[in-house]
Amino acid sequence: MQVAMIQDKIVPVEELEPVYFDRGIYFGDGVYEVVRSYDGKIFALEEHLQRFANNLAAIEITGVDIDRIRSRVRKAFDAAGISNAKIYFHVTRGSAPRNHIWDADLKPNFFLTVTEVPDDAEEKNKGIAVSTHPDRRWKRCDIKSLNLLANVLARQDAAQKGCAEAILVDEAGLITEGAGSAFFALFGRTLQTAPLTANILPSITRKFALEAGKNIGLEVIEKSLTPQQASCADELFIAVTTKDIVPVVRFDGKSIGNGKPGKYTKLLTQEFRSFTV
Amino acid sequence: MQVAMIQDKIVPVEELEPVYFDRGIYFGDGVYEVVRSYDGKIFALEEHLQRFANNLAAIEITGVDIDRIRSRVRKAFDAAGISNAKIYFHVTRGSAPRNHIWDADLKPNFFLTVTEVPDDAEEKNKGIAVSTHPDRRWKRCDIKSLNLLANVLARQDAAQKGCAEAILVDEAGLITEGAGSAFFALFGRTLQTAPLTANILPSITRKFALEAGKNIGLEVIEKSLTPQQASCADELFIAVTTKDIVPVVRFDGKSIGNGKPGKYTKLLTQEFRSFTV
Repeated sequence: MQVAMIQDKIVPVEELEPVYFDRGIYFGDGVYEVVRSYDGKIFALEEHLQRFANNLAAIEITGVDIDRIRSRVRKAFDAAGISNAKIYFHVTRGSAPRNHIWDADLKPNFFLTVTEVPDDAEEKNKGIAVSTHPDRRWKRCDIKSLNLLANVLARQDAAQKGCAEAILVDEAGLITEGAGSAFFALFGRTLQTAPLTANILPSITRKFALEAGKNIGLEVIEKSLTPQQASCADELFIAVTTKDIVPVVRFDGKSIGNGKPGKYTKLLTQEFRSFTV
Repeated sequence: MQVAMIQDKIVPVEELEPVYFDRGIYFGDGVYEVVRSYDGKIFALEEHLQRFANNLAAIEITGVDIDRIRSRVRKAFDAAGISNAKIYFHVTRGSAPRNHIWDADLKPNFFLTVTEVPDDAEEKNKGIAVSTHPDRRWKRCDIKSLNLLANVLARQDAAQKGCAEAILVDEAGLITEGAGSAFFALFGRTLQTAPLTANILPSITRKFALEAGKNIGLEVIEKSLTPQQASCADELFIAVTTKDIVPVVRFDGKSIGNGKPGKYTKLLTQEFRSFTV
């Protein structure tokens, strides 16, 4: 008899709910998105859905109707009635007995949560500290997959150092991005971030941050930075869906600028917010 | 109100079972083992438990009692009553609302299945075909974690080419290992496999295969191979817990030796089996 065991309890395999055999848990075989709303309005949903469709295609998960995903997101958002909401959703390849090879007729699993966006006023007003960490992720970080253990370990390392984000550094000594964010530096009126490659997530917030930069007259360059260069920037910030732009005031223990959020970072935040209304 | 959604159904967050919030599914934040039994006897359980303990420590999952894991494995194996059983188990960091940072008091989740080992007589008698694939895994493949999407995609690529395993090749052009196995070549009486580094799993079956090699008088060298070198070997095989030694008779479409399982591979399989009784 095939048996399963959950903690100390033996259960016949056929009595288990499919979620226990989700390929998401066996392999991280799925992709996810996080979108947020500002004052009752979901921001950049179409951009997120387009990226989600690209990611499903990249790992060959088929049979997911993006129109249906959009309806589900809207339905859950309406049901929650949270005006500043964080909406997380993932699709995994489906539930099946563990086997790397998948069956073509597997039915994907969808899961979503709507929660309130935590208040980020203090982070925005005071800025955050960040610390660097080796980038140990896989080689397709352009895919927003459920394989996030390297990100988790990097972020935890940062937290243990009293930092709010880990800035990942690849084997060539270049900053790729944050463990859960895009990373930007300002040198005078030049806004710099890493170019999009196979090891950088095409962040929606990154795209809007660069657009905001152009709108306020900054020169934008997409070129990788070393930690040494970053620590000498006039301003630093991270960009992440749930918080848009967050000033970085300490980098590996070194104070950035005058140790307070920079003037262009503030202007960028204002400009970004104009996109969200 | 915080809500969740499973497929098309909205569920209040507080009514969801903890398995839906398992960090295993959100992040692949867990480690696993596969052990097997031969004729009613579990093989190398202590070696697997030791590696499991090492892996838990490597990703800082605490509060797991290995003696208790051993008892659970034995209890489930006895309950199943399958003499040639494959026992899969994982521990994840626990269930919690999604956040990269973990709480120190999180309770780890344990899950195990016992199923029958599929009959591998044909693979052993005829050998298998393998194909190469870029190694896109993260940089700590010495940890047997639930981040396996790169392995899944590589194995699926192999299957689409009619091959039973993907042999992973790193950016330096060297073979690391199979997507779910260790990889070996024989040149005359020399048995060669990649050395254990941060990007190679310390495979238990690999260890016993090397021991079997020494027992039958082979010279053992731990040195990485290129695909070109592998394709010119006299014999090739993979080693994996569920099947021990499996002869490889085609490598990227090229026939190995006379296209049949090699003589030392057969001797190694016999020697390996002597360990399991």
